[in-house]
Order: sequence, then C-alpha cells, then structure tokens
Amino acid sequence: MHDAPFSTLTEFRDILAAMPTADEGALAKATERNGQLTKPPGALGDLEDMAIWYAAWRGDPRPRIERPQVLIFAGNHGVAARGVSAFPAEVTAQMVLNFQAGGAAINQLAKAAGAQLGVHALDLDKPTADFTQGPAMSEAEVTGALATGWAAVDPKADLLVVGEMGIGNTTSAAAIALALYGGAPSDWAGRGTGVDDAGLALKCDVLRQGLAANAGAATDGLEALRCLGGRELAAMAGAIAAARAARIPVILDGFICTAAAASLESAVPGALDHTIAGHRSAEGAHGQLLDRLGKAPLLSLNMRLGEGSGGTLAINVLKGAVACLSGMATFAEAGVSGA
Amino acid sequence: MHDAPFSTLTEFRDILAAMPTADEGALAKATERNGQLTKPPGALGDLEDMAIWYAAWRGDPRPRIERPQVLIFAGNHGVAARGVSAFPAEVTAQMVLNFQAGGAAINQLAKAAGAQLGVHALDLDKPTADFTQGPAMSEAEVTGALATGWAAVDPKADLLVVGEMGIGNTTSAAAIALALYGGAPSDWAGRGTGVDDAGLALKCDVLRQGLAANAGAATDGLEALRCLGGRELAAMAGAIAAARAARIPVILDGFICTAAAASLESAVPGALDHTIAGHRSAEGAHGQLLDRLGKAPLLSLNMRLGEGSGGTLAINVLKGAVACLSGMATFAEAGVSGA
Repeated sequence: MHDAPFSTLTEFRDILAAMPTADEGALAKATERNGQLTKPPGALGDLEDMAIWYAAWRGDPRPRIERPQVLIFAGNHGVAARGVSAFPAEVTAQMVLNFQAGGAAINQLAKAAGAQLGVHALDLDKPTADFTQGPAMSEAEVTGALATGWAAVDPKADLLVVGEMGIGNTTSAAAIALALYGGAPSDWAGRGTGVDDAGLALKCDVLRQGLAANAGAATDGLEALRCLGGRELAAMAGAIAAARAARIPVILDGFICTAAAASLESAVPGALDHTIAGHRSAEGAHGQLLDRLGKAPLLSLNMRLGEGSGGTLAINVLKGAVACLSGMATFAEAGVSGA
Repeated sequence: MHDAPFSTLTEFRDILAAMPTADEGALAKATERNGQLTKPPGALGDLEDMAIWYAAWRGDPRPRIERPQVLIFAGNHGVAARGVSAFPAEVTAQMVLNFQAGGAAINQLAKAAGAQLGVHALDLDKPTADFTQGPAMSEAEVTGALATGWAAVDPKADLLVVGEMGIGNTTSAAAIALALYGGAPSDWAGRGTGVDDAGLALKCDVLRQGLAANAGAATDGLEALRCLGGRELAAMAGAIAAARAARIPVILDGFICTAAAASLESAVPGALDHTIAGHRSAEGAHGQLLDRLGKAPLLSLNMRLGEGSGGTLAINVLKGAVACLSGMATFAEAGVSGA
C-alpha cells in the first residue's frame, strides 16, 4: 500500500470515520442473482450470505477471489517479563525466522489457501513498556505500528487475513477487551499458549494492575490500543483500516486479532463492517468478544494458535461461497424446473 | 475401481465385515511428529486429530492430499409421486445435466477443492418402487446400485466425498433413520428442499406407512437400505465401502449421505471408522443422526443442498490440517525454544 496517510491518532481516527461503505447496487444485484441459481432457496446457508457480503464490498455482483493476502505481524511485550506466558519471550523472534523459512503452521495454511504471506517483525529488540507501569506505547510508537500495518496491505489483494506472533500478547488482548467492555479480569484472561492455574491467576493480577495504571484506556478504543496493546496489535488494526480504504474484505483470526479489531470498532462504530470472523478460537474469551462485535464465526475447530491460522483456514470457505455465487448456472440457463 | 466383488447382500456384508483397519504404526508416528511441531501443544485443535486420523488410514505418518474425488449419484424415487418434495421429479435428471454442464454448486466447490468430480445417474427413467407399498428395491436392484458406487471409486484417489441428487430422497433417508434408530416419524422428517407444514405432515404419514409396509427394514441396516433407500443411497454406501477397501478416507456429506452411511454402520459396527462428518446440515435431523454415529461435524454453515456440497467444502479444511502435520518444522529443526 502507499504510505499511511496519518501521523497522529487523531488523523487516524478521522480517516477511520470517513471510510467507504459497501456498494448497495452490487449487494442488490448479487442478492437477485443468488435467488436465481440452481438450488433450493437458502440451501447454501451461510455461504449465500457471505458471498453476497463479499460482492457488496468488492462492488461486483459476480466477484472472484484470486489474490488473497495473509499478513503476520510480530511484536514483543514488556509485560511478558511478568511471566504471563508458558513460553520465553525469545520465541517471538525464533518464530519469525520459522515463518520466513516456511516451517510454521501459517506457511502451510497460506499455501493451501493460495494466499501470499507477508511477515513483518516490529522492533522485536525493543519490547513495549510493561503496561502495569503505564502506557505500553507512546503515541508515536502506536502510530508507527498502525502505519506499518497500513503500508503492508497489497492494494491489489482481494481478501485479507491478519495474524500475529508475540509472546505475552493474549494478556495484552485481554487487557484491551477488559478496557473496552468491562467485567472482571477473569472474564477475559485465558490460558494462551498453555499457562497453568497459577499463571492464569497471575494474568488476572496483571490485567487489574494494567487497567489501574491506564485510566484513559477505558475511555477510547485507540487509547486502549496504545496503552494496553502491542506493536503487532496496532499493525493488525492499521492493516484492517487500510483494507477498508481499498474495499478489501477482511477475515479476522482469533482472540488477539479480534481484540485489536475491537479497538477500531470502539473508536468508530461500523469500522469492522468489511470484516467477518474466520473462526472461534479455543482461547476462552474469544467467543464472548465475537458476540460483543456481533460476528458469527465461520469455523469452530478448537484452534488457538494465532498466526492468522484460523482466518487463513477460512479463506477457502469464503472462496467456495463466492465461487458458487459467481459460477453457478441460473434455473433459466440450466433449464431446471422450479419449486 | 475394479468390478465390485459381490453380487448378493450377503456377500457384500461379508466383505464389509472383513475390511482393513487403520494403521497403528502410522498413527503412533504421526502422533509423535505432531507433538514436536512448532506450536503450543494442541494449539491446532481439531486439525491435529483429523490429520492424525488421516495419516493412520493412509498408513503414512506424513501424508499429502493430492487427489481428492467427489462422486455424485442420482436416483429417482417412487415415493416422490406422493408429493413429498417441493420440486417435481424431473428435476433429478435436469440437475444431472446441470452437473455435467458445470453449472451446479458442486461443480464450483469441487473445483475450489481441487477435486475430480464424477456424476453417475442410476436408471433415472426407472424410479424405485413406492416404499409405502413394499420394498423400494429388489435384492438385485440394491446390489446393482451398491456395485455402481463401488466401481466408481478411483483407486488412486486419496480422499473421497460422496453426494447425491434425487427428488424425494430426504424422505427415503428419514425412513432409513427411523428404521435404524426408532423414534417418531417427526423426529427424522425435515423440510428437504422446502416443503411447508402440510408437506411435512405428509412426509410423516409416508414414513409411518413405509415402516409398516417394510417390517424387515428395522432388523438390519442393509435391509433398511434395500426397502427404504434409493439407488443413489445404495451407490453412496457402495462407494464408502470401496473406499474402505482401498484405505481411502471419506468425508460424509449431509443427511441423505449420512443415512446411507448409517445403514453400513448398523450392518457392521465400525464400517464408518474411515469416515468423518464434513458438516452438519440444516436439514433438521442431521445433527441427531451424526450424534448416533458419534461423528462431530467439521463445518456447521446451515447448508442443506446435498450434492456432496458440505463434504466437498470440508476437503480444504482437511487438506490444511494434513498440510500442517506433514509440512511444519519441528522445534528442533526450527531452533525454537520450548515451553
């Protein structure tokens, strides 16, 4: 994508508030076409809805998905030093090398989905500040990460999945959800890569301290992203926004991706209208977070890996749905009798 | 596949009872490999289980899915004359032409899954007998349809989906389920291609009459298939059996496919161990039928089209799962630290 057209959070918010909406003409034409295809009405179920949604965002009643993009952003978290993850922080950088070498799950899944994969490591040697002591990022840091995400989007892509890698980032995501939606820390804390009961209790303590140290986070989505998020979360948010500007539909991944996305929706309601939920993660609070956003997940396969894995697995489901809308014959074309 | 090695139901049952089982050695090796891959333990959720299951049936701890096959069988039903479908019976033949011309949903979905598609019309000009008056098929007829299904399986395929087209066949499938599992007709009758309340009540009457006219159907799965099924249901059962003989894993489709499969499981428990459920159909009783078989569906997208559509959509999910198992690096290979 071209360089990001913002350098402050206020500018980013203004851009977010002036984004394009779905094409009502394409929506109407796709809906009409869907009703004429050789199948009983509604028999393709959710596939029909998602294909029409895709057509509306692409402004094309008979679209194709030919150039999906998967973007993985990696960041390190000051809060990881508190021991909130089952894995050591150096795993973030090691996994970036694994992504680059083609050895991770997302490499296999992106290939199976026919998607180009981009991997962006954001200042891994400079973790964000520990949010229990104050904001994780300065405005310049969060804006820089939003801009990295924005610039990473291929303007020729016709579908986007964003994912992440960052030891400690389920804690960051839970903190954002707690700031945006309230409740108790235990409502949003999950086991992440596999912490035990003591680790889970520690996570809840860290969330409580994080909210106490960042009073402004509860007042605004972008402020929650800055104070409690991480560079990879902000980059995902920036990429989701850039996709909206280019009318590229987005499939959300799991808990961390969805928390980053939720910060946009909280800042500007409707900011996620061009997104669908690829799956429901086994990370405890993901289903609840999707409910808050009114998003029904395409898949529910007990995945909890991140890396964009669940969203990328859903690409082929959406591809199938769109292929039916655009490729099927109508009753008239096929000479098939109606009901 | 070679010609079917049976010409009576007894011979078919004997073959079914002597089928190969999963390869325990490949199962153990795939499980061990899965535990070493660069992800937190269990983080790929159900994908891990399905990939290991696939490896065990293929006898290869690091398999690939490169040659999936989708087979659609079409048949006509005497019971359709009772008015149990929203569509006229000639639609079966019209849809076969649509499959052959590439205009149906399954054509688009098979292409998206990289699967070869075979379409087999079974004596469409000769509907089965109306099962409210006695058996739908003679032993020669059901055996012939089983043999057609058996012979249609490509022995070089590495994955199989079977689907169907047949106006009236949700009634046939519901009758089989009622014979195999009991309950009330209303437990198994659904709206099919879209019947109204009166149509649903008629379907229940037809089921009651069908069971009364075929007392033997409740005593045995293959007898239920003969008395209450149709040629396309028997062909699906034959193809599922042929796949087992060749150690080709099978993804089941919706209600009708699953009812045909259930007749095998009732005849010989374990006959469906090489199968998984591709999706849960919106056809009312499909979830209940899957529960009886102990199969958890991969997808749940409110589809109710048949044609193998749900099973075929699930091919790419299984492909992704298997690609992860076989293509990911281990912690040692990638130099990633453990938990």
